Amino acid sequence: MSLFCTTLRFGVRNVRLSRQTSSCFNLSSWAFNLTKPSTTKASVSIGKYLPANKLCRSFSTHIERQPHSEHFFLRQLFDRESCTYTYLLADAFTKDAVLIDPVIQLIDRDLEIVKELGLNIRYALSTHMHSDHTTTVQKLKKYLPLCKTAISAASGATADVLVRHGDIIRIGRLNLEVRATPGHTNCCVTYVCHEEGVAFTGDTLLIRGCGRTDFDQGDPETLYNSIYNQIFSLPNTHRLYPGHDYRGRTVTTVYEEKRYNPRLTKSREEFIQIMNTLNLAHATDNQMEHSLPDSFK
Amino acid sequence: MSLFCTTLRFGVRNVRLSRQTSSCFNLSSWAFNLTKPSTTKASVSIGKYLPANKLCRSFSTHIERQPHSEHFFLRQLFDRESCTYTYLLADAFTKDAVLIDPVIQLIDRDLEIVKELGLNIRYALSTHMHSDHTTTVQKLKKYLPLCKTAISAASGATADVLVRHGDIIRIGRLNLEVRATPGHTNCCVTYVCHEEGVAFTGDTLLIRGCGRTDFDQGDPETLYNSIYNQIFSLPNTHRLYPGHDYRGRTVTTVYEEKRYNPRLTKSREEFIQIMNTLNLAHATDNQMEHSLPDSFK
Repeated sequence: MSLFCTTLRFGVRNVRLSRQTSSCFNLSSWAFNLTKPSTTKASVSIGKYLPANKLCRSFSTHIERQPHSEHFFLRQLFDRESCTYTYLLADAFTKDAVLIDPVIQLIDRDLEIVKELGLNIRYALSTHMHSDHTTTVQKLKKYLPLCKTAISAASGATADVLVRHGDIIRIGRLNLEVRATPGHTNCCVTYVCHEEGVAFTGDTLLIRGCGRTDFDQGDPETLYNSIYNQIFSLPNTHRLYPGHDYRGRTVTTVYEEKRYNPRLTKSREEFIQIMNTLNLAHATDNQMEHSLPDSFK
Repeated sequence: MSLFCTTLRFGVRNVRLSRQTSSCFNLSSWAFNLTKPSTTKASVSIGKYLPANKLCRSFSTHIERQPHSEHFFLRQLFDRESCTYTYLLADAFTKDAVLIDPVIQLIDRDLEIVKELGLNIRYALSTHMHSDHTTTVQKLKKYLPLCKTAISAASGATADVLVRHGDIIRIGRLNLEVRATPGHTNCCVTYVCHEEGVAFTGDTLLIRGCGRTDFDQGDPETLYNSIYNQIFSLPNTHRLYPGHDYRGRTVTTVYEEKRYNPRLTKSREEFIQIMNTLNLAHATDNQMEHSLPDSFK
């Protein structure tokens, strides 16, 4: 492999470029030489006075950096039809696990993984419910008879467990805090695992978007308040896992959504106006959720 | 919220179950009571003599446990049309980054994320190339003029960098080892980041499957050897990120594929027979890759 190599490292002023044959190439060096000629001098100058690790950190304040613990096990699963994400969250040691927003049509896939990994599914947690959801969790209960269904008490649904704002769900050593985040529906909740820096936002907050508010229970102002008070109040580096994504993105962070979400970088009034004038297609299009049951027993 | 609670903890023999109203429920306890009555006694008995952490570890030998470092940044991206995964891998501190197997039709999405996160894409790495790929990376080069294209030298393609087995690609503090894994095509490679316990297997190894071998360069025996020698030789807990998945699964591990891959839990001879009798639809179906360019300059 023939390519340019450089001896430049952070904090070193002298730059030497040489074309050589090597099986090893250092991309971090190139940032200050081949690709950023106009900033090389400044960067190197800064590097002279700051330790390398501090120089590095100054560039990385807004992408996730919190490593997960050994206990944290997360498997993200996708339904191509409805663009719904299901999450299999577990304590890797105790093997206690929950399924968040399982898609009933794909429950065989999920159960296969659960079985193979030897996980014990304690709860099927729902982030919300919609009146148009026609599926049931009978199949889930059939194969996992000890799995309890859980949904917000505000849903009015019948479930094994009705969760409320402030509840803590313990999954082995992991804790999931229930945060009520209405606005898309009355019963929307976000599940937050503080110690691992992750939150499952359902349809409240999507990547660069949010849940629609033109259904019966939808209310833009309530949604705006939920997102700002319950999600944007989390640390910037918290990873946010949405209920859907239609462009193949899998995860975002609090920082990213605060800064780049086209709807939420607006004022409350502008947000309300945007949401009230979306003119979305009705429930039959594939952007509607098909993931949640209307019966939880 | 009304539910069962239990006082049982690891290492404690006495079990007390009480139905009570509580906002806090511990799922790990339930594993030894409500769902595993037949094994409760044995588990508790073991717990009496082993420290809790060792008892826990005995249950978790085969799901990933290696936490990532603070430097590790990975964003998985999906193309619903071709079921192709693209990976954005970066050093969170230096912001040096690579795109693995970008889908040219979705390059706008990827570039948007790259720009928002302030990442510096050094390389567009390909895990392999197919002769039917008709797209080009002109668009990528147009917007990222300093991004170099890289593919296996065995491809015979023209690219900025031709990688070979054993090469190390450094992305800030992260290292990607290039492992030649032919069999699906001659030029298939797997990129392994040992220190973070992850590998990008392209079409060599898929989740519970593998790349087809009925194209010109395909060879089942070569593929079998590649998987066993270059991927299954990695630690069991290494996470494997495939080039495609058609059932919405996002990641697997060496352990899982060794144990549950229906093709690779067979003997070499059986594997060859399976691959030679798959009778797959030809290139026009959506299980064909559309992600890679046939021109790299």
